[in-house]
Amino acid sequence: MAYEHRLRVRFHDTDPAGIVFFANIFVYCHDAFEEMLRAIGLPLNELIRSKEQILPLGHAEADFKKPFRHGVLVDVRVVVGKLSDRSMRLDYELRDDAGELLATCSMVHVAVDPATGRSTTLSPRLRAALEPHKA
Amino acid sequence: MAYEHRLRVRFHDTDPAGIVFFANIFVYCHDAFEEMLRAIGLPLNELIRSKEQILPLGHAEADFKKPFRHGVLVDVRVVVGKLSDRSMRLDYELRDDAGELLATCSMVHVAVDPATGRSTTLSPRLRAALEPHKA
Amino acid sequence: MAYEHRLRVRFHDTDPAGIVFFANIFVYCHDAFEEMLRAIGLPLNELIRSKEQILPLGHAEADFKKPFRHGVLVDVRVVVGKLSDRSMRLDYELRDDAGELLATCSMVHVAVDPATGRSTTLSPRLRAALEPHKA
Amino acid sequence: MAYEHRLRVRFHDTDPAGIVFFANIFVYCHDAFEEMLRAIGLPLNELIRSKEQILPLGHAEADFKKPFRHGVLVDVRVVVGKLSDRSMRLDYELRDDAGELLATCSMVHVAVDPATGRSTTLSPRLRAALEPHKA
Repeated sequence: MAYEHRLRVRFHDTDPAGIVFFANIFVYCHDAFEEMLRAIGLPLNELIRSKEQILPLGHAEADFKKPFRHGVLVDVRVVVGKLSDRSMRLDYELRDDAGELLATCSMVHVAVDPATGRSTTLSPRLRAALEPHKA
Repeated sequence: MAYEHRLRVRFHDTDPAGIVFFANIFVYCHDAFEEMLRAIGLPLNELIRSKEQILPLGHAEADFKKPFRHGVLVDVRVVVGKLSDRSMRLDYELRDDAGELLATCSMVHVAVDPATGRSTTLSPRLRAALEPHKA
Repeated sequence: MAYEHRLRVRFHDTDPAGIVFFANIFVYCHDAFEEMLRAIGLPLNELIRSKEQILPLGHAEADFKKPFRHGVLVDVRVVVGKLSDRSMRLDYELRDDAGELLATCSMVHVAVDPATGRSTTLSPRLRAALEPHKA
Repeated sequence: MAYEHRLRVRFHDTDPAGIVFFANIFVYCHDAFEEMLRAIGLPLNELIRSKEQILPLGHAEADFKKPFRHGVLVDVRVVVGKLSDRSMRLDYELRDDAGELLATCSMVHVAVDPATGRSTTLSPRLRAALEPHKA
């Protein structure tokens, strides 16, 4: 049900305090989102090139529980929290390889028609492909 | 009362859809936070070098209202939303130079002792300096 | 003759070693380049929107002399090193506010027609505007 | 002899022109470098934590041959170009999965003692581990 993505914390993700700068944790989630779209057969690059729709963020939030340290393997677990007509919410849990919860994150993407810049209906094939990953 | 920071959207902040990648909007807020600390006489670099405390994020959230386009001037308005014993919440409004609201953001920083990695009491001189910027 | 841009080293530009991650120094130069284009009346965002041409890099190189530390003010001095038919080279010197040389950088931009992806002649109005900044 | 690292071009690596912003190509090379260090048993995070030495860049240069597009798989091939007393040069070739050369890159790392900030002798165990990857 959940899609799982694994990544490693890199040198340049971390800051002088030796831990990942918080904005990069949102990037980790977006990377997992991109990989999930690829895994379900709808790579984001194809969606964008098709000019069918783009999926900018309407809302994003995260709770940071423990520091992400350089070199650590991180498992990102994604589920589709909500599929609405014109938007969708994805929920993320990020854990180190001992299973310790490092952060949770929630991101709402809005379907936008790139020609008009206006909100539009979520692509039916995207909706169908995401359905199995609903929480 | 509010601290105001102005920045310009740069080429590499934007993505193939021609708008700022959402994680960079959190970076804009953190930049405003850094400038505010400098303006009140407590630059983040000095706070970190003094080993008094670091201020990692415990929570961050944002609502993205309108696209941030390449070349646009953005005004970031910061107020201190809440000063607690061991944490503080900063609230941000980001507007273009026509005054249009582009995004709101809220970030909770936790005071952490860099020697132990544990939460600690917010620095009294930081608290005093932030007081005039309370909402 | 030279265009001068000033910036401050931010928290998230720096790495666990406490100094700016080298790739960000190339970003600083590109930021100075964007500001120079704006100052000469040809903002990069307008050039891109006009679909006249884009200016991707063909070559970049830098020598890093001294560490860029968090909080430091950096002066970036740009001169146009060479204006060719289809490309241009910009040369950068980056100094701290004591005048100490931190890095030098050289970047070759190639004029590309966004419609074909092929190299094209450097925009005449860009060439004219850059002429006064030749070394 | 060469170390090979594979990565995929992500959405936020690319710019409004739809191709990877050049500074991120240097980041790709540094990621390959980190993975090579891990593969030879000397992860960069351990080297940094041991306070034995840090490896900042003294020089970096790249030739960009073809655009890196969103979604493309990139193979980064690393060889050790030169091992000197106090520095080392790593040479990179980046190709798409059709084998097309996208960029070449060369990076000189300098061994620095984090306690003094001065150049030092390259760690003997690092030198020994890199020897098999010499060009």
